[in-house]
Amino acid sequence: MEYFPAPLEKLVEQFASLPGIGGKSAQRLAFYVLSLTQEEVQDFASAILEAKSSVTCCPVCRNLTAGGLCPICASPKRDGTTICVVADPRDVAAIERAREYNGSYHVLHGVISPMSHVGPDDLEIKSLVERVARGDVQEVIMATNPDTEGEATAMYLARLLRPFQVRVTRLAYGIPVGGHLEFADDATLMRALEGRQEL
Amino acid sequence: MEYFPAPLEKLVEQFASLPGIGGKSAQRLAFYVLSLTQEEVQDFASAILEAKSSVTCCPVCRNLTAGGLCPICASPKRDGTTICVVADPRDVAAIERAREYNGSYHVLHGVISPMSHVGPDDLEIKSLVERVARGDVQEVIMATNPDTEGEATAMYLARLLRPFQVRVTRLAYGIPVGGHLEFADDATLMRALEGRQEL
Repeated sequence: MEYFPAPLEKLVEQFASLPGIGGKSAQRLAFYVLSLTQEEVQDFASAILEAKSSVTCCPVCRNLTAGGLCPICASPKRDGTTICVVADPRDVAAIERAREYNGSYHVLHGVISPMSHVGPDDLEIKSLVERVARGDVQEVIMATNPDTEGEATAMYLARLLRPFQVRVTRLAYGIPVGGHLEFADDATLMRALEGRQEL
Repeated sequence: MEYFPAPLEKLVEQFASLPGIGGKSAQRLAFYVLSLTQEEVQDFASAILEAKSSVTCCPVCRNLTAGGLCPICASPKRDGTTICVVADPRDVAAIERAREYNGSYHVLHGVISPMSHVGPDDLEIKSLVERVARGDVQEVIMATNPDTEGEATAMYLARLLRPFQVRVTRLAYGIPVGGHLEFADDATLMRALEGRQEL
């Protein structure tokens, strides 16, 4: 017995297939769509199609862009001699929010993960090496996540870039600003001690 | 400074406007859409448009249907002399899942709520009265939610239907099956005592 009309049931299924959306939430979202005006629904559907069709990867840094060079690679104000290597476009957004970094990026679109069958060839590593090989890069900052896979990827890249005589650095580890020492884990505290600085 | 390309930013905004979806979830959903194939994205967008364009209200019971009479009103196996009045199409689905009720429904599409400026004229009350006035209805079961507004709506409808000499009933209150007495609230326990039945 079908409880909802087929097109509604289908929309519920579509929402339920999204990550983090369970059956009840999917139902709520589908009913919400029905409650929107025709125009709002049209806008929603267009936004989905538009995002998929017009968002591509920047030919230089592989960050997401709406076509052509990304705004960061296209900007003459950004320092192209420094490349910050991140796993995901969202990491670019996070670093940009800090308003501290003025170099360029390179988005790997993942990290090396033998468990998930992701090897170096599945990532934007060749394009990074080619950028560095072109010779005008002075520093590559590894800004992958501080977990096992992020670490391994950073180490792998550092070894790969050694022949190019470029400075390879890693984001500092330590106590997060505003954090409490008592809640910091052992590994973080150890790294914070190791990386202590003169006052 | 824009961190994501405009079409992606727009999709994030669209997702964030859905109920119960915060900024971070919206971002995750938008990136998920980018990771889908062209065909899957097309299916998702079509499901949204299709649900909005083809789901209408049944001309008899005002439940959602994909056009024409809803399957319940159209079924010769359902008892049209009993009408179960619910606030929302999801309540029909809930009662249908119990596989106990074989009558027809009437969906009010809301409850009377002066706080939210919803009066009797904003609901499918006129259509209910017309159905009852036609004369072949024997019982109307009030199955609005057991909260203040649901109660008030049920009381209002009961008074409205009094002239038609039809039996008007209300869903039983009591301890939910599988519940624990110690966790039942006072009002529920009071109603469970009041409604106690011979064993």
